Amino acid sequence: MPHPSTHLPHRVFGTAASGNCHKVRLALDLLGIAYRWHEVDVVKGGTRTPAFLAMNPNGKVPVLQIDDHTFLAESNAILGYLADGTDLWPGDRLQRAQVLQWLFFEQYTHEPAIAVARYIRAFLKQPDDARLPALIKRGDAALAVMEQHLARQPFFAAGRFSIADIALFAYTHKADEGGFDLAAYPAVRAWLARCRAVPGVTDMPSPA
Amino acid sequence: MPHPSTHLPHRVFGTAASGNCHKVRLALDLLGIAYRWHEVDVVKGGTRTPAFLAMNPNGKVPVLQIDDHTFLAESNAILGYLADGTDLWPGDRLQRAQVLQWLFFEQYTHEPAIAVARYIRAFLKQPDDARLPALIKRGDAALAVMEQHLARQPFFAAGRFSIADIALFAYTHKADEGGFDLAAYPAVRAWLARCRAVPGVTDMPSPA
Repeated sequence: MPHPSTHLPHRVFGTAASGNCHKVRLALDLLGIAYRWHEVDVVKGGTRTPAFLAMNPNGKVPVLQIDDHTFLAESNAILGYLADGTDLWPGDRLQRAQVLQWLFFEQYTHEPAIAVARYIRAFLKQPDDARLPALIKRGDAALAVMEQHLARQPFFAAGRFSIADIALFAYTHKADEGGFDLAAYPAVRAWLARCRAVPGVTDMPSPA
Repeated sequence: MPHPSTHLPHRVFGTAASGNCHKVRLALDLLGIAYRWHEVDVVKGGTRTPAFLAMNPNGKVPVLQIDDHTFLAESNAILGYLADGTDLWPGDRLQRAQVLQWLFFEQYTHEPAIAVARYIRAFLKQPDDARLPALIKRGDAALAVMEQHLARQPFFAAGRFSIADIALFAYTHKADEGGFDLAAYPAVRAWLARCRAVPGVTDMPSPA
């Protein structure tokens, strides 16, 4: 557990090359919020230690430490917390719910295929893993849904850049590391360029 | 596509025995919002028709129709839309984000194990499916996280019943149909009883 402090900045417990963690970095950078980054090595069991499980019993990065005793888990919930009341979660009630729709699409349909394929190839270095063909098929289906949407709209919701774009940018801009080819998705590639043009948006590092 | 109408009530396109769809019914019932339910047979391809895909290109129930041209997908985003500004999504900024944390836990960690096991056993009637042992192991890990949390708190977030409880109630109260035994989770069983004591909370039907 981190040493208690009465006036600490936000602390992020995360893995720099993890898209779920990079989302949190992007939101903090875009909002100009100070933070300290504590690197966690997920491949070497860094999320399975008693100290980590005391912060997040579900054993996953990222975790945002808000004060001495308060820890928030789930990358897209952290995005919601940081963006609440800011231009990164814009719009009326319906538009805000449409942001949520894409956040849940990302966690249920996109990440379990595209991020997991990348984890197997780029973190575990197992390019011949038997799970990959099915993951590629599922990931391509998710990319096709994104392509259809982005062919008609510049960003995912509310007509402007939001946490929905942050969440989907995270693993899409490194999808090639999971074995995906974005050549067939021109609207997705154009959207990635629009995201990268937003001041504060950076690419995440590749795994070592 | 449903026949256009200028003053229609909310319409739900869903499967009555699906937990993701039952969440939407519970929120509508608890909030006293009128709706029409359009039953979709997911096993027989009801989410793969052109009419359905025009509502949700991702091809999943439930879908909430808000007006003639507006459709919202993703069960937990629909919960957020319906509950926004009500006692079902209570609390301050942090508490609201903690509700989100459990909604994302539900969709990423809980549903892909517990709902999928139930789908294989109770919808597809394949109790010997080779995927089930791994799904049971993952689902038990999710139930253990819930048990630890509920041993200290009556509901998932904000100290009271919220859409986080609705989302997790949906598949947990029928987890036995997926092959799970809740005997080892007394705090989860006590929480289920507290949920069922909320006026308007009903069990979902079992698949035919």
